[in-house]
Amino acid sequence: MKIIPANLNRKNLHELVMGAIAPRPIALVSSVGEDKIFNLAPFSCFAPLCLKPPLIGLHIAWRKDGQKKDTLKNVEFSKDFVVNVVNESLAKAMNQTSAEYPSNVDEFKEVGLTPINSELVKAPRVAESPINMECKLVQILEVGEVPTGGHIIIGEIVLIHLEDAFWTGDHEDMAKLRLIGRLGGEFYCRTIDIFEMERPYILD
Amino acid sequence: MKIIPANLNRKNLHELVMGAIAPRPIALVSSVGEDKIFNLAPFSCFAPLCLKPPLIGLHIAWRKDGQKKDTLKNVEFSKDFVVNVVNESLAKAMNQTSAEYPSNVDEFKEVGLTPINSELVKAPRVAESPINMECKLVQILEVGEVPTGGHIIIGEIVLIHLEDAFWTGDHEDMAKLRLIGRLGGEFYCRTIDIFEMERPYILD
Repeated sequence: MKIIPANLNRKNLHELVMGAIAPRPIALVSSVGEDKIFNLAPFSCFAPLCLKPPLIGLHIAWRKDGQKKDTLKNVEFSKDFVVNVVNESLAKAMNQTSAEYPSNVDEFKEVGLTPINSELVKAPRVAESPINMECKLVQILEVGEVPTGGHIIIGEIVLIHLEDAFWTGDHEDMAKLRLIGRLGGEFYCRTIDIFEMERPYILD
Repeated sequence: MKIIPANLNRKNLHELVMGAIAPRPIALVSSVGEDKIFNLAPFSCFAPLCLKPPLIGLHIAWRKDGQKKDTLKNVEFSKDFVVNVVNESLAKAMNQTSAEYPSNVDEFKEVGLTPINSELVKAPRVAESPINMECKLVQILEVGEVPTGGHIIIGEIVLIHLEDAFWTGDHEDMAKLRLIGRLGGEFYCRTIDIFEMERPYILD
């Protein structure tokens, strides 16, 4: 079948695109606002955007009521955030943080996760996550219309915390890490069914 | 352990970040240049960046020699490209297209895939892929230094081709699609170990 995105409503377009661009990595983003209240929220429209400097991009949609999400407001205030990586044991807590809590609620307390102070940024990091990436804001781009568009946050990773047990000496031990990925609908995948393909090199 | 990205060389930084931001969706991008030669190359620094209009972002690194990759040159010329989704049966051919072929080589022929004309863009699409997204170029941003940085391509999805068998009526049938994701190192994951978590709604 052929589908013209412009002809779909917001919900159907969302379902279609999120099922096609998958599996997506999940950034559990911790941030802090002017009121000093910690925030946690998951985002899966998320990708590395440059190797050096190490930039990441994150899409934050408008709330359905056309207001900015707390994460965006906090990043605008503090100019930083932390990306916490999500493995299987964090799945339930991560999903719980996707609820639209009022701004004065500390999601760490609500879902039972532990904030630790970061070293180079104001936003706290999640103790239970195997990898935390402290990020400084580089740029915010507004895209699309309100409320079907949103903002693209571009940040630079300035410090990475990684549990020793998940490092092989050359790279993360993907089988041990047990990250989860976001699919379409309300589906997620485990990453335990792993295979390797050597990258080919062609000589001219 | 704690790692300051600025202290790492390009290879180690790449390994570290690609293992942490995973699993990543794979865009097998087809494009066509001024010379009418078709190009195919895979990119996994790739994410939806806006719902409406449906924008996607794609990071294209410099070639190691500081030259632009063929995909980038083609997109600059034609102002469009096609994202072809990668399932298990496309894995080997996709990996083969990651070799740095000379510009005058048609990767479709090299790896045995079939180009079909697109409807709204000049770039061809891959017949063997279960989902093709015809995209028009919106913007190109240059990021970082040469050759450790690259470009961010932002495109709008203008037409989606989807095999009927992979549509449930509401969303893609993720279990049937059998997409693969990119992990760190030379590792990939299947997406057959799927679970569902209902999104929570909190009432104020």
